[in-house]
Amino acid sequence: MFSTMAQRLQELMVLFFLAIFSKAVAGLKPYTRANLMPDAANNNYCLSWRLAVEANNVRGWRTVPAQCLRYIEAYMIGGQYDRDLEFITQQIWSYVSGIVPSSDGLDAWILDVDDTCISNVFYYKGKRYGCDPYDPAGFKAWALMGGCPAIPAVLRLFMDLVEGGFKVFLVTGRDQESLGQATADNLHNQGFIGYERLILRTASYKGQSAVKYKSDIRKQLVEEGYRIWGNVGDQWSDLQGEFLGNRTFKLPNPMYFVP
Amino acid sequence: MFSTMAQRLQELMVLFFLAIFSKAVAGLKPYTRANLMPDAANNNYCLSWRLAVEANNVRGWRTVPAQCLRYIEAYMIGGQYDRDLEFITQQIWSYVSGIVPSSDGLDAWILDVDDTCISNVFYYKGKRYGCDPYDPAGFKAWALMGGCPAIPAVLRLFMDLVEGGFKVFLVTGRDQESLGQATADNLHNQGFIGYERLILRTASYKGQSAVKYKSDIRKQLVEEGYRIWGNVGDQWSDLQGEFLGNRTFKLPNPMYFVP
Repeated sequence: MFSTMAQRLQELMVLFFLAIFSKAVAGLKPYTRANLMPDAANNNYCLSWRLAVEANNVRGWRTVPAQCLRYIEAYMIGGQYDRDLEFITQQIWSYVSGIVPSSDGLDAWILDVDDTCISNVFYYKGKRYGCDPYDPAGFKAWALMGGCPAIPAVLRLFMDLVEGGFKVFLVTGRDQESLGQATADNLHNQGFIGYERLILRTASYKGQSAVKYKSDIRKQLVEEGYRIWGNVGDQWSDLQGEFLGNRTFKLPNPMYFVP
Repeated sequence: MFSTMAQRLQELMVLFFLAIFSKAVAGLKPYTRANLMPDAANNNYCLSWRLAVEANNVRGWRTVPAQCLRYIEAYMIGGQYDRDLEFITQQIWSYVSGIVPSSDGLDAWILDVDDTCISNVFYYKGKRYGCDPYDPAGFKAWALMGGCPAIPAVLRLFMDLVEGGFKVFLVTGRDQESLGQATADNLHNQGFIGYERLILRTASYKGQSAVKYKSDIRKQLVEEGYRIWGNVGDQWSDLQGEFLGNRTFKLPNPMYFVP
């Protein structure tokens, strides 16, 4: 009974949050078809930009180019982002299906959390899909509500991995002290159940780059004896550094860059 | 006088070669607008495929999916491939402009050759843009003619690097014995003049993966004292392994995969 009320309350908070943000975006033109289909030249430029981001040719960018707002919006909510996720998780699955996990319980996968397991697209809608600069306080407030929806393709992959006998480690740069409980609750309420460990950033890793922090975490897992078969994230910083695992998979994210 | 005749002869041979190939593709439907614009769902699938290839999520693929022939053709010759190349070389240039080369002559860049410096798009047109499997003899015959055109954006980058005081190393998996002379001639006739060394695959590297071979070459350069500032290639195997350099840049190539 109490948990149902808590969930209702949480849903209300998420709606309230979205309401505030929709005010913030009220200044934008309404989403007519004309706005979602800007001129071809601009589309072509933004496609080049997005490709370069996904191939790690553009690094350290702070905001989406302003001229690409409508393009990125159309990409994120118009279906292609979802299709890209489905395509990649199919690739992951065809790789997974060739692995026979051993009985020692040490076959591991690493998944990032934000925009890998659970989605921040609703939040970033209020940040003009990344055309506005990163807002740490705003993101923290959003994350604390624990209302990020699962990314369906990744949730299916996650459940298949757990059922298939892999130990799944969820590794996130979110701060453990302030966001640990909200993140665990959010993952649970979205069906991410049965993972081996949720690893958040502790005080000792504060200020370190994601590449260094995540490399250290993977190193510890390898030292514990785990074989990292795959490593999935939406940021190149999830997939670079050391102890990367046997295969890495880059999920799309044209909204923000984590160094 | 002789060199002019030789060039004419070479041009004739290239035309002859293209004529043979256009016969081979005569079975395809003519390139009407309708063919270049297949249904939206297919386009979306092929865009997901191309993105996944460029982000290194799909590996070891042998042919372009048959349903993507028209999509990849439109991409390669319809302008977006050129725009993507321009975009990435601009990114490279903005990185280069922040480097001050030292006076010791050891500031190096590494460029791949095929579909980085010079283009095989004409050849691959006859191979249905990669929908046909790799044909070693056909490719060798094409390469021997030395008629690959420069990729304009990369030629400009090359000339800027040389003028800027960098030592440019062209590193290719092409066989030195059979293709060394033709490759050097081809690069020269396309304006790639002033590089430090053209490095081809010698007998001792035969059968090795591109990652291993190119890592070994880069290791030797680093041992000679060179600082590798950048490493540019159209294949992920150019950009993986060891001694990668300070930055790597992936040029697009949805036509073939070199392991």
